[in-house]
Amino acid sequence: MILGVDYYPEHWSEDMLEEDIDRICKLGANTVRIGEFAWHLMEKNEGEFDFSYFDKVIVALKKKNLKVIFGTPTATFPAWVAKKYSGIIAENESGNPHAFGGRRLYCYNSEKYRELTVKIVTQLLSHYEKEEAIIAWQIDNELGHEGSDQCYCPNCEKGFHMFLKKKYQDVDDLNKAYGTIFWGQTYNAFDEVPVPKPTITSHNPSLLLDWARFRSASINDYAKLQIDIVNKFKRDEQKVIHNLFGGFFDRAYDQNVLADHLDVVAYDNYPVWGGLEKPLQPAHIAMTLDYIRGLKKSNFWIVEELMGAQGHTVIGYLPRPNQAKLWSHQAMARGCEALLYFRWRGMTKGAEQFCQGILDSDNLENEKYREVEAFFEDMKRDEAHYQTPIKADVAVLYDYDNRWSWSAQPQSHAFDFTEEFVKLYKGFYSLNVMTDVISVNKDFDDYKIIVLPAMQIVDESLRLKVEAFVKKGGIAIFGYRSGIKDKENNLYFGENALQKMCGITIEKYESLGKNQVVFIETGHGEKGEITVWRDMIKTTSARVLFSYTDKFYSEYAAVVEKVIEKGSIYYLGGSLDDNTMKMLASKACQKQEIEVLELTEGLELVSRSSAKILLNHTEAVLKYREIEIAPYEVKLIEI
Amino acid sequence: MILGVDYYPEHWSEDMLEEDIDRICKLGANTVRIGEFAWHLMEKNEGEFDFSYFDKVIVALKKKNLKVIFGTPTATFPAWVAKKYSGIIAENESGNPHAFGGRRLYCYNSEKYRELTVKIVTQLLSHYEKEEAIIAWQIDNELGHEGSDQCYCPNCEKGFHMFLKKKYQDVDDLNKAYGTIFWGQTYNAFDEVPVPKPTITSHNPSLLLDWARFRSASINDYAKLQIDIVNKFKRDEQKVIHNLFGGFFDRAYDQNVLADHLDVVAYDNYPVWGGLEKPLQPAHIAMTLDYIRGLKKSNFWIVEELMGAQGHTVIGYLPRPNQAKLWSHQAMARGCEALLYFRWRGMTKGAEQFCQGILDSDNLENEKYREVEAFFEDMKRDEAHYQTPIKADVAVLYDYDNRWSWSAQPQSHAFDFTEEFVKLYKGFYSLNVMTDVISVNKDFDDYKIIVLPAMQIVDESLRLKVEAFVKKGGIAIFGYRSGIKDKENNLYFGENALQKMCGITIEKYESLGKNQVVFIETGHGEKGEITVWRDMIKTTSARVLFSYTDKFYSEYAAVVEKVIEKGSIYYLGGSLDDNTMKMLASKACQKQEIEVLELTEGLELVSRSSAKILLNHTEAVLKYREIEIAPYEVKLIEI
Amino acid sequence: MILGVDYYPEHWSEDMLEEDIDRICKLGANTVRIGEFAWHLMEKNEGEFDFSYFDKVIVALKKKNLKVIFGTPTATFPAWVAKKYSGIIAENESGNPHAFGGRRLYCYNSEKYRELTVKIVTQLLSHYEKEEAIIAWQIDNELGHEGSDQCYCPNCEKGFHMFLKKKYQDVDDLNKAYGTIFWGQTYNAFDEVPVPKPTITSHNPSLLLDWARFRSASINDYAKLQIDIVNKFKRDEQKVIHNLFGGFFDRAYDQNVLADHLDVVAYDNYPVWGGLEKPLQPAHIAMTLDYIRGLKKSNFWIVEELMGAQGHTVIGYLPRPNQAKLWSHQAMARGCEALLYFRWRGMTKGAEQFCQGILDSDNLENEKYREVEAFFEDMKRDEAHYQTPIKADVAVLYDYDNRWSWSAQPQSHAFDFTEEFVKLYKGFYSLNVMTDVISVNKDFDDYKIIVLPAMQIVDESLRLKVEAFVKKGGIAIFGYRSGIKDKENNLYFGENALQKMCGITIEKYESLGKNQVVFIETGHGEKGEITVWRDMIKTTSARVLFSYTDKFYSEYAAVVEKVIEKGSIYYLGGSLDDNTMKMLASKACQKQEIEVLELTEGLELVSRSSAKILLNHTEAVLKYREIEIAPYEVKLIEI
Repeated sequence: MILGVDYYPEHWSEDMLEEDIDRICKLGANTVRIGEFAWHLMEKNEGEFDFSYFDKVIVALKKKNLKVIFGTPTATFPAWVAKKYSGIIAENESGNPHAFGGRRLYCYNSEKYRELTVKIVTQLLSHYEKEEAIIAWQIDNELGHEGSDQCYCPNCEKGFHMFLKKKYQDVDDLNKAYGTIFWGQTYNAFDEVPVPKPTITSHNPSLLLDWARFRSASINDYAKLQIDIVNKFKRDEQKVIHNLFGGFFDRAYDQNVLADHLDVVAYDNYPVWGGLEKPLQPAHIAMTLDYIRGLKKSNFWIVEELMGAQGHTVIGYLPRPNQAKLWSHQAMARGCEALLYFRWRGMTKGAEQFCQGILDSDNLENEKYREVEAFFEDMKRDEAHYQTPIKADVAVLYDYDNRWSWSAQPQSHAFDFTEEFVKLYKGFYSLNVMTDVISVNKDFDDYKIIVLPAMQIVDESLRLKVEAFVKKGGIAIFGYRSGIKDKENNLYFGENALQKMCGITIEKYESLGKNQVVFIETGHGEKGEITVWRDMIKTTSARVLFSYTDKFYSEYAAVVEKVIEKGSIYYLGGSLDDNTMKMLASKACQKQEIEVLELTEGLELVSRSSAKILLNHTEAVLKYREIEIAPYEVKLIEI
Repeated sequence: MILGVDYYPEHWSEDMLEEDIDRICKLGANTVRIGEFAWHLMEKNEGEFDFSYFDKVIVALKKKNLKVIFGTPTATFPAWVAKKYSGIIAENESGNPHAFGGRRLYCYNSEKYRELTVKIVTQLLSHYEKEEAIIAWQIDNELGHEGSDQCYCPNCEKGFHMFLKKKYQDVDDLNKAYGTIFWGQTYNAFDEVPVPKPTITSHNPSLLLDWARFRSASINDYAKLQIDIVNKFKRDEQKVIHNLFGGFFDRAYDQNVLADHLDVVAYDNYPVWGGLEKPLQPAHIAMTLDYIRGLKKSNFWIVEELMGAQGHTVIGYLPRPNQAKLWSHQAMARGCEALLYFRWRGMTKGAEQFCQGILDSDNLENEKYREVEAFFEDMKRDEAHYQTPIKADVAVLYDYDNRWSWSAQPQSHAFDFTEEFVKLYKGFYSLNVMTDVISVNKDFDDYKIIVLPAMQIVDESLRLKVEAFVKKGGIAIFGYRSGIKDKENNLYFGENALQKMCGITIEKYESLGKNQVVFIETGHGEKGEITVWRDMIKTTSARVLFSYTDKFYSEYAAVVEKVIEKGSIYYLGGSLDDNTMKMLASKACQKQEIEVLELTEGLELVSRSSAKILLNHTEAVLKYREIEIAPYEVKLIEI
Repeated sequence: MILGVDYYPEHWSEDMLEEDIDRICKLGANTVRIGEFAWHLMEKNEGEFDFSYFDKVIVALKKKNLKVIFGTPTATFPAWVAKKYSGIIAENESGNPHAFGGRRLYCYNSEKYRELTVKIVTQLLSHYEKEEAIIAWQIDNELGHEGSDQCYCPNCEKGFHMFLKKKYQDVDDLNKAYGTIFWGQTYNAFDEVPVPKPTITSHNPSLLLDWARFRSASINDYAKLQIDIVNKFKRDEQKVIHNLFGGFFDRAYDQNVLADHLDVVAYDNYPVWGGLEKPLQPAHIAMTLDYIRGLKKSNFWIVEELMGAQGHTVIGYLPRPNQAKLWSHQAMARGCEALLYFRWRGMTKGAEQFCQGILDSDNLENEKYREVEAFFEDMKRDEAHYQTPIKADVAVLYDYDNRWSWSAQPQSHAFDFTEEFVKLYKGFYSLNVMTDVISVNKDFDDYKIIVLPAMQIVDESLRLKVEAFVKKGGIAIFGYRSGIKDKENNLYFGENALQKMCGITIEKYESLGKNQVVFIETGHGEKGEITVWRDMIKTTSARVLFSYTDKFYSEYAAVVEKVIEKGSIYYLGGSLDDNTMKMLASKACQKQEIEVLELTEGLELVSRSSAKILLNHTEAVLKYREIEIAPYEVKLIEI
C-alpha cells in the first residue's frame, strides 16, 4: 500500500535532506510526493531547464527505497512568466488581472501559457523518462480550485465564441436554444455573444449554462494537454493522476471528463480548513469520498490528507486528538487505497505558514506524528481489507449541468446545492447504507435505489432511463423542481413528462426564504418540516405520503409515491428535515431489502467485504453492541 | 374600460398565434400590449427596418377586435448596436461598462444612442401612422429602473459639465452655491468638476444633489426625445404613455417632469417581487398607487399588473389565492382605470423564466387564469364606479430634491426615506382616509391637511406657501429635520425660518442607530416611541404634545403643535411609532372634520363617489359591520 | 497655556471676521489654527501665489492678541492640480484613481506632487517668515487617515521596487527572506515583485509586511519633505507640529518616525464619530492619549478636540451634557498641555455639515459654547497642575511591525489588534495605574512592569532586552502567540527562544471563532474565560496560574508565570476576560509595589504630581470616598 507524505525538500536547507528522509522512513512511509510548485527551480529563465536539484533529491530518496509521485509544476508559474507574458494571467469579472503572488493565476485558454506548459512538462517527463523511483505523475495541482475556474479575459472571450460556434454551427440555432428573442437579444454573429460580466438584472440562463460548460471544457482541455504529454513518456506501470479539491460542486468544472483520462483519481481530503469553527459533518465528508470514488467507480488515492489545523490568513478548528487519524480511516473505509499526508513539515515562510503539516516549526515528533505512525501501522496490518472493491446498492446522482443551472438561478435565498445534496445523501448515510455518488450520466441500472437531488434539468433520455430502472423494480427518489427544464436550461413547454411519470401535476410552487419553514404530515399523524422550497402537488395517480398543513394549501401533497410496475418513484416536494428524509430512506431500503442499521448519532459503520469499520465521530465514548469505542476511535472488526 | 394582457407573440411559434388570441378574448380582454423589447425584430441590421412581423400580429388581433398598446423598443437595444457602438453602454461607478445581456444598459446622454433611437422610433411611428387598432404608444419601458438611472461614462461627464454651465453660467456661482471653499475645492472651470465616482470620505452634498438632478434631467430629456416623435405622428385619440416602476424613491429621476409630457401615466404594479418573503404592506402598496395617481392628479393605467410569483434568479412570495386579484381591485379603487396583466404566458426561456404570467409553461387554464377572468367580469359590471375622479382632503407631499438630499446624507443608519414616508402616510391610511401623494411643487391649497415627511430642504417660497395654507385653516404636519436646508443642499445660517414659524428652536438632535429607541409621553400619560432620529425641541410659542423621558432630555419636547391663525402645524421631532402617528392623524382629521374609520388591521375601505370598496388583506375572515369578508376578498358596496 | 479653536474665516463672509474674533476671545481662547485646506486660496492657478487673504486675517487676529497655528494646505490639493496632473492621484487596489472631491487623495510617491508641495510650502513659509503671531506650523493634516495610507499606482509600484532594492541589495536575499521558494515565486529581479493587489488566495506575508513598511516610509518621507522646509524658515521659538488621527493601529504608518522630526506631537481627539451609537469606552480613549504622549515621551497638544456630534453622511452619538468637556479634561489629565477645539463654528456647506463645531449654524452661544468656556476657565485656574511631566511605572508596548504582521494574518476571525491591545491595557487602567503606551523600540528599562500584547514578532535583541529587564526585577506580561515570528514575518524554526525563556512549550494552539469561548481555572477555584485564541501550554519551569477545563485539554496551562532571577514573566495563552486580566495586573502591581485603586466602574482617577483628577464617565452620580461626583463631572483635588 502506498503510504507517505508530501515533501518539499526545496523549502529546507540541503543539510536537512538526509535526516528528513530517515525520519520519513521511520514514520512508516514508503512514498513521497515532490515537485509541484517548483517550476522556477526547473526553469530559472525561459528555456534554461535544469533538473539537477530533483536529481539529487531522488538519489537520496532511492537510497532509502522511497518511491516518488512527481507533480508537474504548472499550478504556479515563475515570476518571469508574469513579467514577460502578462497576457497569460486570468482576469476577474471586473476585467482586472490577478496580481502575481497567489496561485492558480493563469488562464487555461492562453495559447502562450499552453505553449510554456508543453515545454516544461515535456522537458520534465523526458528528463525522468527512465526514473524507476517515480510511480506516478501528478499533473498540475487542484485545477479549478479557489475560483480559478473562472476567467473573463480576451482569450476566454475568443475561446467562448469558438466553443459556441463549434456547438451550434449556426448562430440562429443558438438564438433558438437561448430564446434570445426575449429582450431582443438575438445575435447576428457569435462574436456578439457576451462573456457574462456584470450587467443590469441578469444574464440569459442558457448562456450562463453554456459559459459554465465552456469553463469546464477549458480546464479539461488544459488538463488533457498535459496528460497527453505524460502518456507519451510514462512507462506502463506508472500512473497519471491529478489531485482534486473539495468544494467541487461550487466550480464550473466537471471532473468526470478529467477522470476518464486519468489512471487513478486522487483527492485532497481536508474535512476542515481556514476560518471554519467546526469541521464538515461526517455525512458531508463521507459524501465527498463517495463522490471521488464514483468518478471512476473504483478505489482512489489521497495525496493530501489533513493532519492538523489549516488556514491561510485565518486558522480553522483544531482537530481533537485522534480526530485527524479518524478521518484518514474514514477515507480508507470509503475506498481510498493509497494515502499521503500533507505535508511532512509546515513551512515557516510563505502563504501557508499556518497550514500545519505532520511536523511543526519546532521539528519535534509530536502527537500528530504519533497519529500518522499509528495509522500507517494500522494500514499495513489491515491492508487486505482495504483492497476490496466497494459495492453499493444505492446511488445518489448528481449532474454538473444541473449544478450550474442552479448556480445561475438558485430560486430561493435558502438554496445551497451541496447542502441539499448532503441532505438526501444523509438519509442513507445515517442508516449506514453504503452509497455511490456518481454522475447521472453514468450507468445506474444495477442499483436498487437511486436518489436524484436538485435535478431541475431532466432530458427525455434520462427520464426514460429512470422509468426503465423503476419498471424493473428500482426505487427512484426525486427532489423538488425535478425535470422542469431541458438541457438548454429552459422550462419545458406543455405537459411535464417527469411529473406525468410521477403521477402528479405541480400547480403551484413557493420559494421559501432563509427563515421560513412549512409543516407537513401524513394521514396518520407523522409530522415533518420543509424548508427552502415547496412544490404544491396534485396527484393524478401517485399516492400521497405527506401533505401541507397550512392555510390554503392543505389540499396539496408535499411528498408522494408512484408505483410503476415493479418499482416506484418518490417525489419530494421540498427540502425535508433529516428525520423525515431518514424515514423515507428506511422505507425504500426495506422495500428493496437493503440492510439498514441505525446507530447512535456520530457513530459510523462502513461494511467492506471482509470487515466492518466502526468510527466514533464524537468526543464521547459510544457503544456498538457490547463494544465500547473511545472518542474519535476507529475499530476494524473482521467478518 | 381597457382590460388586457401583455402579449409577446414573438416568443412563441407562429402557429400558436391564433389560439392565443382566441384565449385572450375568452379571458375577457379587449387590449394587448406588444412590441417593447423587439428592436432586433424590427431592425435586424442597422438601417434595415422591417415591421412585417407585427403587421401580421396586428391583422390577427384586429380580427378579434383586440386593441393594441404598442411599445417603442428602446429599453433593450440589439446586440449589433453593442458591437458596433460600444460607447453607448452605460458605465458603473468603477468605470466598467455593463455587459450586454441584461436590460436598460444604454447611456441616456449618448449622442449615438439618441440618433439610433430617433431612427427606430420614427420608422415605427411612421409605419403604423394609420393603424387604427393602436390606441396608445408606450415609449421605452421602465426608464431608470434597476439602477439604470446612473451612469458615469465620459458622455455623462461631459453632459454634467454642460448641465452645470447652463445652470450656473459662472463657475464662481457654482463655487459659492457648493461652498467649495471647504477643503479648498474651488473650481476654476466647469470641466474640473468631478462626476461622483468613489473617493476618500464623501463628495460635496450640493454636488451630489446637482448630480441627481442631472441624472433625472438626462432621463427626462431622453424620454422627451421619443415623446416628441410620437406626438408628431400619433392621431389625437391615441395616447402617449410610459410605464413607471415601483421603488421610484430610490432613483435619481423625477417622474413629474415626464408625467407632464404624457397623456396618461401608466404603472407597473408589483406588490411583491424576487427575493421578498412577504409582499409590501397594504399601506405601502396604497401609497405607490396614490403617488402614481398624483403625478397628473388624475386616474391612471396599469400596463403590468402582477398575477403570480415573480423573480429573476430568486423567486419571491407566492400570492395566496385571490390575493393578486385583490391587489388589482385595490389599484382600481385607488384610481386605476385601465389594467393589463403581465403577461399572457410566462416565457420558458430567457432571464424572466420565473416571472409568472397568467398562464404557466403548462399552458393550462389555472387558478390565476380564473382570477383574471373574475376580475375582468367584476370590472365590466362595476365600470361606472371606477370612472369617477378621486377627491382627497389630505395630501402627503414629497420632493425629489429632498429625496436625493437624504440619499447623499442619510444621517442615521436607520433612515430609509420610503419607510419614513409610508410611516406618515399610514397614519391616515389606517383611518381609511383617502390621501393624495403629490410633489410638493404641485398646488396643495385645496387640501385640509398636508403631511411633509423627510423635508429637510424647505425654501422660503415653500415655507410661505405652507404658512399661508395654515393661516387659512389648514393643518400641516412636518417630520423631523424639516427646513434645515436650502435648495443648494446647504444648512441655513442664522435663525431658522421654519422653526420660527413652528414656534420652536431645536437646540440639539441625535441620530439614533438601527437598534435604538427612545420613549416619549404626553403630560397625561400617553406613551410612545421614537426611532431613527430625534430633534430636541424647545418651544417658544408652540404647545408641547409629547416630551422625551430619558435622562438629560426630559426638558425637551418631541412633538409639538403650533396654532397659526385658523390652522396649525404639527412638528414631529422623530420617527414615531404607528400608534402615535395614527393618534395624531386622528386628532388632525377631527379638527378638520374629515371622517375617519378605524377597522380591524388588514381591512381597507376605499370610498369612491358611488361606492365603497372593502378589501380584506388578510388570510382570516374579517367583518365590516354585519358583512363577512373572506380572506383576500373584495366587496363593492354601492352607495 | 495654549487654548483655542480651529477657525476657518475663509468659510464665512468677510464682514463676520471681526465679530467672530471678538467672540473667540470672549470664549477665553488665545490661539486659533488656520490655513490647512486652503491651497486654492493661496495658489488659484499654478505659480500664482497670493497670501493676501491670510495677511488680512492675521492682522485682525493680532489686534486681539490671538496667536496662530498655521497649517500647510497639502491635505487637499486644488482642482486645477487634479485636472493638470491626474497622475498625482492615488489608486485603490483595483487600479482606479480616487475621484476628486474627497480629501487626502494624493500619492505620497508622486514626484510631481512632491514638487508642487515644495513650491507651496516654501512660498507659504517664506511669506510668513517674520510673522510673530505664528507660534507653530502644522504640516499637512492627518496624514494617512481614512485609508490614505494605501496606494497601488505605478509611482508606488516603482517606489516599492526601489525600497526593496535599497533594503535587500541582492534579490536573492529578498528571496531568502520571503521564502519565495514556496509556490515557486522566486524573483529574478526586483521589478518582478508585485504590489499586493487582489490575487487568488493570499500574498506572501513577508511581502505584505515589507509593503506596510514601504507605505509607512512613503508617508514619513513625504512628511519629512515638508518638515525640512518648515525648519529652514521657522524661528526657534516656533514649533513644527502635525496632527495625528485616532485609529492609528489600522494604518500602515509608524508615527514614531514622524514624531522624531516634530517639535511637538499633536492629536485630533474624537472619542466618537459618525455612525457610532456609543463612544469609545473610557479605557480606549485613555489608551490613545497615552499612546500620543508616548510618541515623544512628553506632553502633547490637541489641535482638534471634539465638541459635539460628528459625522460625514451618518451622524454619531450625541455627547451628553458635560461629556465632551469631560473628554477634554481626560486629555489634559493624561498629558495634553495645549488644546484647540474643532471648530469655531460648523460649516453650513460642504462634506462636513454635520461635524458640529462649538457654534452651530444658528450662530448662538449654546451649551457647547458654555462647556468650552467653563473648560478654558478651569484650565487657566489649574494650569500649573497640567504642566508637570507624567511618570508611569507600567508601559504597554506596541510594535508597528507586529501590527502589520497581524493585519496580514489575523489568524482568528475574532482577532482585532486594537481591542486586544485595549484589553491588556485596561487591566491596569481599571486599577487607576498610570501607564505609558510606547513603541517596543523605545527604552523600557526604567519601568516596573511592561505589557506586550499581540507581539508575535519578537527578535532576539528584543527578547534579550526583556530578559535583562526581568532579571533586574521587572515583570513582563506577554500575550498569546508571542515570539513565534522573526522580523521577516516568518515562523522561527526549531526550539522557540521566547517560550524557552518563559519556561514553556506550546504544543498546540486553537483559533477561536467569533462566538467561541473556553473556560479556565486556577487550582483553587478561580474561574475565567478565554476568547479569540488559545495556546495549549506545557510548562518546563514555569508555574501554572490557569489551566483549561474542557475535554482533551485540561492537561494544558492557559496562563503561567516564570520567575527569572529578581523578576518574572507572565505568559497569557489566550485573550482573557476583563476580570482575570485585572486580577493579574493587580498581582503584578502588588509585587512591584505599585499603588492600585479600584473604583466603581466608570470612575477614573488620574494622579499628577500636584493633583488628582477624578472623572465620572457615567450618567449616574458616583462617589469617591466622601466626594459626590455628578454625571460627567470632573473634580481636581490638589494634593
